[in-house]
Amino acid sequence: VDKKTKIIIIGCGAGGGTAAQLARKTDRNSEITIFEKGKYAQYSKCGLPYVLSGEISSFNNLIEFSENWFEKENIKLYLNTSVTEINKTKHIVLAKRDNEQIKKEFDKLIIATGAKAFIPSIKNIFENNKLVSGVHLLRTMDDAKALFSELKHTKKASIIGAGLIGLEIADTLYKKGIDITIIESLSNILENTLDIDMSEPIKKELEVKTNLFTNHIASKIETENSRIKQIIIKNKETNQEKKIETDLLVIATGSKPEVNLAEKIGCKIGKRGGIIISEKTLTSLSNIYAVGDCTEYKDFVTNEPTCVGLGSIAVRHGIAAGVNAAGGEYNLPSGLLQTRTSEFFGFEVAAVGLVKNVIKNIQTVYGKFSGSSLPHYYPGGKNITIKVGVNEKNGEIVSAQAVGSNAAQRINVFACAIQNNVRVENLKKLETAYAPPIAPTLDVLTLSCDVAFLKYSRKKR
Amino acid sequence: VDKKTKIIIIGCGAGGGTAAQLARKTDRNSEITIFEKGKYAQYSKCGLPYVLSGEISSFNNLIEFSENWFEKENIKLYLNTSVTEINKTKHIVLAKRDNEQIKKEFDKLIIATGAKAFIPSIKNIFENNKLVSGVHLLRTMDDAKALFSELKHTKKASIIGAGLIGLEIADTLYKKGIDITIIESLSNILENTLDIDMSEPIKKELEVKTNLFTNHIASKIETENSRIKQIIIKNKETNQEKKIETDLLVIATGSKPEVNLAEKIGCKIGKRGGIIISEKTLTSLSNIYAVGDCTEYKDFVTNEPTCVGLGSIAVRHGIAAGVNAAGGEYNLPSGLLQTRTSEFFGFEVAAVGLVKNVIKNIQTVYGKFSGSSLPHYYPGGKNITIKVGVNEKNGEIVSAQAVGSNAAQRINVFACAIQNNVRVENLKKLETAYAPPIAPTLDVLTLSCDVAFLKYSRKKR
Repeated sequence: VDKKTKIIIIGCGAGGGTAAQLARKTDRNSEITIFEKGKYAQYSKCGLPYVLSGEISSFNNLIEFSENWFEKENIKLYLNTSVTEINKTKHIVLAKRDNEQIKKEFDKLIIATGAKAFIPSIKNIFENNKLVSGVHLLRTMDDAKALFSELKHTKKASIIGAGLIGLEIADTLYKKGIDITIIESLSNILENTLDIDMSEPIKKELEVKTNLFTNHIASKIETENSRIKQIIIKNKETNQEKKIETDLLVIATGSKPEVNLAEKIGCKIGKRGGIIISEKTLTSLSNIYAVGDCTEYKDFVTNEPTCVGLGSIAVRHGIAAGVNAAGGEYNLPSGLLQTRTSEFFGFEVAAVGLVKNVIKNIQTVYGKFSGSSLPHYYPGGKNITIKVGVNEKNGEIVSAQAVGSNAAQRINVFACAIQNNVRVENLKKLETAYAPPIAPTLDVLTLSCDVAFLKYSRKKR
Repeated sequence: VDKKTKIIIIGCGAGGGTAAQLARKTDRNSEITIFEKGKYAQYSKCGLPYVLSGEISSFNNLIEFSENWFEKENIKLYLNTSVTEINKTKHIVLAKRDNEQIKKEFDKLIIATGAKAFIPSIKNIFENNKLVSGVHLLRTMDDAKALFSELKHTKKASIIGAGLIGLEIADTLYKKGIDITIIESLSNILENTLDIDMSEPIKKELEVKTNLFTNHIASKIETENSRIKQIIIKNKETNQEKKIETDLLVIATGSKPEVNLAEKIGCKIGKRGGIIISEKTLTSLSNIYAVGDCTEYKDFVTNEPTCVGLGSIAVRHGIAAGVNAAGGEYNLPSGLLQTRTSEFFGFEVAAVGLVKNVIKNIQTVYGKFSGSSLPHYYPGGKNITIKVGVNEKNGEIVSAQAVGSNAAQRINVFACAIQNNVRVENLKKLETAYAPPIAPTLDVLTLSCDVAFLKYSRKKR
């Protein structure tokens, strides 16, 4: 009767750490163990660029929950410990710390193994199975520390990938006075966040402040004394090559779910390469949950399977898995909205739902509006542009993108609308908060819906 | 066949002016006339305090649409012109400008007569039917100009009413170095916007920066050379009196709908004293519309009749009336949300729905959460407190109040939720936009819903 529930969590990132916390909250008597292969307790990965830039004064500040914290909560946290095997029939996890073998039983297992950087195929990028000196990733605290230690001596830096993370790093290094080259294989920047028309002003700014090569791939690295010296980049259309001198290179070409352990025990892996999870964050195996960047879930609007590397979603997963594993009940929303935001080079960017190039199975009309964050007569208003996507069939809002003032909070309104199948005809009449120093009588968020509604109405005729 | 629709609009405020614009947009051939009793074309009333404070450099900046603008749009605007009679059977409006009599026919009439200041009964406040010298209102451009002309010589100012407008004025005068006394008859400030617990920090700040007398009424004005010299205020509980020396007095005790003309022709007036309008902004009389502060409409949540003096709603009404009068079709949302915001003394304040003391027919549970606008490890985070109200019966969100960082845009999310009958269980899991420099992984907006959901769940058991 008095048996304690044994919960093992693999990984102490945002998803795993949150799962442990919520399991503890849900069942004060459960026995909770976390195996973390790195040397740090739960820290914010998303904060790493801001230590590089100096906004955050120390890497230690990023530790959100320390070893001590977990100890006080009676959660056994093993750092520097790799799980070597999961025995799903015997309900045992084997792990290794230095030369120590650890063997633990579980009633419930939560896999929070995260994602690993995707590294494009570039000649000479590896030396002895390691990235060549001067080539960096920015996934982990150690990655960031390694990069940080080089910045003092860096005059020229190159970044592969013009997504959110790539541009965050570019902005960080730019602010340090480093000469920046950005290499993007697609013809557009921020391909997964903004449509071309929306990212245009940012692209223009990048063309002024950095050396931006869209439609280019990095084909080869040239070294000197075993250290990166230059990169050969190639125009994808003309095949023309160009040599870029650089002191260092950062790879920011996305990530892929880390699913090795899960795959070995037969957890179903989805077509995007993530562990498929249910609304309860259960994998295809009973009593085994998975959370965060290693998982795959369905998109709210399209129902298509989607992997998302967002900290906010990892935390939400962690809440669900922790509560459920400890005997409570918590269901995820029925799909992912992918609400995301960032800021760089003076632009606040936010989006929810899929971009035009990606949303395939839903015919969408768009409305776009650019205006001021304040009434025109009030000084200090900043530009805000919003583009909203509407399902041509039923008028429901399916996506929104924003660049400018308070983009993120405005996009949250659209997130609420999408999650509740709100029609554009309804949202365009939303009573938004108005006061001259704060927001205009008609907010750009509703005005963009006016434009979308007009286009939608014409299509319906 | 070629008959032009004749549209007459009474009043060129936010509602009337917008109605004219939308009528013109909807029917390029319509004949549109506006009669405005004041001497200015469409200007922002809400902007007036910010000219006083100097944020906005000139009263002229507040003119949103000038006489010229209306002329170019072929809208006949009569300024300084009072409507003396509406003949609803003959479809004629009689108006007077100086000694000129004007007579116009209409097919559609839009009443946009606004509201007039409510002036509490205070001994000696009037002299020869005028406010005694040094006593001011702040409803119109002329009110503001009169007040502005006095500021240079003002050392002490008193304000009656601690609502949004009263505190905007107090902040404005405070910034000019004037010694401020605020007199509020209720025991609480911002009674229609925030619950007592939410307004507490603002009250504390007012107690430091101003002389705040809640639970006091102004009973008498004492003059010297026909000008205000002091006010006698009285504690409502103890009846104790106090003399306040003051150079001027501003009355900010709300307003009441101006319905004289409408009432005379038999438009149905509601129990709140406003002209009752339909979703099309039609009054009880055919072909006669009414918009903005002179109207009464139902509250979205309670279905109770409500008057609202908000510029954003007047504009929405204007859109509806203009489109409908010109032969188009535009329905208002089925009820008012009363989304509102302002800022003063360093606080951004926003709310949607009714406060606890006012929401009567719906049993409500509340969740409140205070946190930072940014993750704790990122510097510069500002406090934001949100309180959300949930219908005990069905879990739907019925109200929200926010004080702090980006209060207005966060309240817009709740406005969207209320308008779409979103349940707290849903909103608490909303995927909000997260990035360290912009917003935390879990926003206070969802965390306040977590608290409310817990309380709601307990009530349900």
